[in-house]
Amino acid sequence: MEIPPRIITLTTDFGTSDAYVGVMKGVILGINPSAQVVDLTHAIPPQDVHEAAFLIHSAHRYFPKGTIHTIVVDPGVGSNRRAIVCQTDSAFFVCPDNGVLSYLVEETSGPNFLPVCAISKRANAVTIENPAYLLPHVSNTFHGRDIFAPVAAHLSLGVPLARIGTPVHNLVQLPMPEIHISDDTLTGQIVKVDSFGNLITNISRRDFVAWTETAPPYTIQIGNARINRLNRAYAESDIGEPLAIIGSFGLLEIAVNRGSAEERLGLKRGDAVIIRKKRLLHP
Amino acid sequence: MEIPPRIITLTTDFGTSDAYVGVMKGVILGINPSAQVVDLTHAIPPQDVHEAAFLIHSAHRYFPKGTIHTIVVDPGVGSNRRAIVCQTDSAFFVCPDNGVLSYLVEETSGPNFLPVCAISKRANAVTIENPAYLLPHVSNTFHGRDIFAPVAAHLSLGVPLARIGTPVHNLVQLPMPEIHISDDTLTGQIVKVDSFGNLITNISRRDFVAWTETAPPYTIQIGNARINRLNRAYAESDIGEPLAIIGSFGLLEIAVNRGSAEERLGLKRGDAVIIRKKRLLHP
Amino acid sequence: MEIPPRIITLTTDFGTSDAYVGVMKGVILGINPSAQVVDLTHAIPPQDVHEAAFLIHSAHRYFPKGTIHTIVVDPGVGSNRRAIVCQTDSAFFVCPDNGVLSYLVEETSGPNFLPVCAISKRANAVTIENPAYLLPHVSNTFHGRDIFAPVAAHLSLGVPLARIGTPVHNLVQLPMPEIHISDDTLTGQIVKVDSFGNLITNISRRDFVAWTETAPPYTIQIGNARINRLNRAYAESDIGEPLAIIGSFGLLEIAVNRGSAEERLGLKRGDAVIIRKKRLLHP
Repeated sequence: MEIPPRIITLTTDFGTSDAYVGVMKGVILGINPSAQVVDLTHAIPPQDVHEAAFLIHSAHRYFPKGTIHTIVVDPGVGSNRRAIVCQTDSAFFVCPDNGVLSYLVEETSGPNFLPVCAISKRANAVTIENPAYLLPHVSNTFHGRDIFAPVAAHLSLGVPLARIGTPVHNLVQLPMPEIHISDDTLTGQIVKVDSFGNLITNISRRDFVAWTETAPPYTIQIGNARINRLNRAYAESDIGEPLAIIGSFGLLEIAVNRGSAEERLGLKRGDAVIIRKKRLLHP
Repeated sequence: MEIPPRIITLTTDFGTSDAYVGVMKGVILGINPSAQVVDLTHAIPPQDVHEAAFLIHSAHRYFPKGTIHTIVVDPGVGSNRRAIVCQTDSAFFVCPDNGVLSYLVEETSGPNFLPVCAISKRANAVTIENPAYLLPHVSNTFHGRDIFAPVAAHLSLGVPLARIGTPVHNLVQLPMPEIHISDDTLTGQIVKVDSFGNLITNISRRDFVAWTETAPPYTIQIGNARINRLNRAYAESDIGEPLAIIGSFGLLEIAVNRGSAEERLGLKRGDAVIIRKKRLLHP
Repeated sequence: MEIPPRIITLTTDFGTSDAYVGVMKGVILGINPSAQVVDLTHAIPPQDVHEAAFLIHSAHRYFPKGTIHTIVVDPGVGSNRRAIVCQTDSAFFVCPDNGVLSYLVEETSGPNFLPVCAISKRANAVTIENPAYLLPHVSNTFHGRDIFAPVAAHLSLGVPLARIGTPVHNLVQLPMPEIHISDDTLTGQIVKVDSFGNLITNISRRDFVAWTETAPPYTIQIGNARINRLNRAYAESDIGEPLAIIGSFGLLEIAVNRGSAEERLGLKRGDAVIIRKKRLLHP
């Protein structure tokens, strides 16, 4: 007999100063007292679906098979946006259908900017419909409590997707930040600023290596910084200096040794990073 | 044989940057390694007993029967304020006797502004006295560690109230924010500003419906905003516009779709909300 | 058969708005699904090893024997600083060898300013070397995920230190803030400002009592405040007034009843506190 999954992660924009997160935990533990609830973060900026999409993509790969990820960043709560459960080979995702799984969905065309897990082909997704797995009264303002938490708890008890709702195939997708390649440049953008002030871009190790192998020497241009090499460690550069490194999720990252690249360069999500071939005047 | 309760929640004003919360968890797990410790919040503003009282009232109803709620917002630590355990039909509350249970205590007169659980009648409360359930050395500065955490842990092992201390009947009560009704107006106040900037008032769905049924059309006046209808969902209004809604705890709430009503209107806890009958000049 | 330890605490400077902490929890639970992961704090200021050293010293004593403390404040990640496991009579510490255990190491000479636990004599420490207990790919930027989390998880399954790496005897030590004694003065400094704004000094109850017993009356001078007595409780002083008290970790602390001494006095870590004998003009 297979042991049902029991780890439930929570990712929300609720902050931790109100009762909302505690209430979700209470609902979960009331349905499955053995569930192990793990906070991923509750500090997603309010209604920032992109930030949540990036975070769950970064984190989910490190959890054991069968983990249930509950994501409640939900500006459309109470509207007609769908509530879904998506099951992949390795995990369950319980969330509004608002694009929060976009980074997880396999890109089948264009440059493959992230090492994604496959949802589109092998995934099994349903809309949440069966009231037996919801709280008795469903509000229009707090589906984290009334829908997502109880469904996650029931999943952790082994309830199959087919009993929760009807299959859905076309999930809402956010526009994904792309990279652009010309003869002289590889252009990407900042997709995440972390709490250290590291500027994480959408240029993967693979894309970076493919481009720079055929094009050394190069300059990485980001804001007013120009960087000419790739560090292996933060501590390899002088304190306070901007540096480039392949970060822990396999993406090109601009950082400052013992400082904040965000503060040093004054940049934000969406700003461009350009890797430029250096022209040799007399080759 | 009844399984003793094992979920222990923590609500404090300790923040999460110091060792205080970790120390409480260590003390609990040292006494009952099987306890399941759940953080409600540690971001109560320092010494803000009212905020803690509102939060524990909002959250406790969603936890399973027998949950032990530990609340340490304790400006009087080391003074002669009492430390108590209060047991209701559904939960235990371990806290200083400083009014933090005020929202839980049934109001027997006046307008019943919140759907309260009954403490006064059916509850069983004791002062914490038995040193067998405290840390060996009790400081004057950190009863969370020395008194409340160990008592909560022992409760989770099934220790009965009678062994912890002697019965107490009159708990300290905070002055509760009331609503006022005149011929033309229903006046309440903001009792909580949540981290989205939603302004939660002390006007319950029941009071609101009772008043407005006999008095349409009406205007909700809060700060410089005038709102003429009740939304069913945040997303029903234009982005950036103030709206009124019955929020997830059954209270009238002023919000801004994808924004912060707190920032938009510049209001804070205690500020008034007035629901006013519209006078028809030629009826 | 001894039950292996299973509580794993986490102390980091990762904040809680990114995926880093969640990823560490995923790695731990993937290796030992029964581990009980406890957050001490993730709000250590970035790269502030001293703050982490003080916090883990304050907190670890309250956890049950065998607890595994994982501390990832690691400005030298990817450099040649060592990664270590240190086992004492009561706990395991998994961390970079960068001084983060400094407050735990027994001082054998000089004024013994803190009630430390002994690492130097009875401790057993190893460098982390065995790849069997790490993630398959070890990055240069996130050893919390690739080294410290998996080692902590394997320790919680009972893996002995000898299989993790080779013994190490001389741990890196931070310069410790000392106290200075002259005929007229006992001088210490602020070692921690907590989230209430309490100013915690490195003057222990023992040192304070030893000095003031032979030297009353005295004045405690800190910033522009002069305090002439020791409180037993915060609530003993007028609201808003600076006071001195022996705090919950046995150290002299300057506080303000229902306020912040940090804000009131404008002081920070490292600033001096001087206890001065009052000269009696006509003895």
